[in-house]
Amino acid sequence: MRVRLELSTEPADYPFRHGVRVRFAETDAMGVAHHAAYVPYLEEARVEYLRALGRPYGEIRAAGFDLAVLELAVQYRRSARFDELVQVHTRVSSFKGATFQIDYLLTVDDDVCALAATVHGVVDTDGRATRAPGWLKELLLGV
Amino acid sequence: MRVRLELSTEPADYPFRHGVRVRFAETDAMGVAHHAAYVPYLEEARVEYLRALGRPYGEIRAAGFDLAVLELAVQYRRSARFDELVQVHTRVSSFKGATFQIDYLLTVDDDVCALAATVHGVVDTDGRATRAPGWLKELLLGV
Amino acid sequence: MRVRLELSTEPADYPFRHGVRVRFAETDAMGVAHHAAYVPYLEEARVEYLRALGRPYGEIRAAGFDLAVLELAVQYRRSARFDELVQVHTRVSSFKGATFQIDYLLTVDDDVCALAATVHGVVDTDGRATRAPGWLKELLLGV
Amino acid sequence: MRVRLELSTEPADYPFRHGVRVRFAETDAMGVAHHAAYVPYLEEARVEYLRALGRPYGEIRAAGFDLAVLELAVQYRRSARFDELVQVHTRVSSFKGATFQIDYLLTVDDDVCALAATVHGVVDTDGRATRAPGWLKELLLGV
Repeated sequence: MRVRLELSTEPADYPFRHGVRVRFAETDAMGVAHHAAYVPYLEEARVEYLRALGRPYGEIRAAGFDLAVLELAVQYRRSARFDELVQVHTRVSSFKGATFQIDYLLTVDDDVCALAATVHGVVDTDGRATRAPGWLKELLLGV
Repeated sequence: MRVRLELSTEPADYPFRHGVRVRFAETDAMGVAHHAAYVPYLEEARVEYLRALGRPYGEIRAAGFDLAVLELAVQYRRSARFDELVQVHTRVSSFKGATFQIDYLLTVDDDVCALAATVHGVVDTDGRATRAPGWLKELLLGV
Repeated sequence: MRVRLELSTEPADYPFRHGVRVRFAETDAMGVAHHAAYVPYLEEARVEYLRALGRPYGEIRAAGFDLAVLELAVQYRRSARFDELVQVHTRVSSFKGATFQIDYLLTVDDDVCALAATVHGVVDTDGRATRAPGWLKELLLGV
Repeated sequence: MRVRLELSTEPADYPFRHGVRVRFAETDAMGVAHHAAYVPYLEEARVEYLRALGRPYGEIRAAGFDLAVLELAVQYRRSARFDELVQVHTRVSSFKGATFQIDYLLTVDDDVCALAATVHGVVDTDGRATRAPGWLKELLLGV
């Protein structure tokens, strides 16, 4: 599965939203959040999404699975500044065998800040690709 | 310009190489370099590439230009572990008006660790897009 | 002013508390939050403390002041793990001329996770030490 | 063992030196290296020190030991800026039972940038404090 970045810029298209405030440590000498700082924001949003779905990531790991990151893509639109609250709108956009994509729309005060996507592979505790169990697929697809 | 990630996995196709050793602080609880840690590696490699080309990034900024990151894409192939030396093979792959793409091939002991690309926009000191001056284009394209 | 780390381990001795959840990106190959990850937690807590006191850090900067970090000390007691909620109990412990100390007690589930302190200097926009204005001193000391 | 920060500002008093270049990702909106960025510099320096002593950290871990960080102290003197080369002068200053202190003098162009110290505890693979084996003590004390 190759990451696709033709994403909706409509918050209403995303079932989950998580707010992250830009730390001063995450800013750079251009005075804005450094572009690498967004990557942990995406991770934090999907961890919170799993918690909201009733299955904290710790339970998934305890069940013997990990969700390895296979691909990452980010399109930057408008800088986020120190202390601004970035809303990370999140959705699972596709699921195929052992891999799935999560889409993210990042906004600050309703302005689009960035679009992003991550492709994940379900792996076992030894890091080997494994088919997603039914409950995990249902969980992520909201079936 | 949209980032493209059909990259060569042949180190010989990249004119520059920079080594980065994985810090313990960059590993995560899966025991490998966290996927977000690669993003500063790319930045460090392009800064060193500019220095090797005879034009440290500080001089570009002093001349009134910045190279903002517009897009980022990473494809992860094999994890890098603590203390491993990651070679970041780097090249400028295209230049169009005020934007250009840099490609990266990351290897550890000749294994492909990741492929990545960043799209940059030349901006002035106020962050506004501006046409790249001739010397910058020549520098990056090696004309 | 030299940092002092003889701190109270009683949450009740701290007037402010801010919760930070450990990101996966902040863990290391020992499976716990990396010791460097705590430093931004302290920063985040003092920024939230200023906001709670009615004076967001942005206003202090807009007024022409910055609170540079002069010293830092951390004593680690018990590791924090991925997804745990770290409570950062915070207080201003002393103020002298242009410098002041902030103390931090970090707890997870009522266990002491770490003790920390930062010494700050009030500086002007050029980074030069300057006497703290009355309103800032009153703000921080809660007078 | 409590960390002590009465350190020499003479590079000649430190047997080992490691250079780290400030990444743009490590700068902050004040235009200098963020104070938290120094902590991984210290770690990188002690890892390189162990390698120079002939015993890479990986071998110490393979032998069943880890060097947990128990305390950290940093005194900031002069900011380091993007792309500056920070020299981290390093020495083991004391060893007592299962704990030892490492001192660091950070300089940029011969100016003192910061002083720092870390106190470490030798632990086994389960994270329990254990007496340092003779070879490790000899290694670190250069006996």
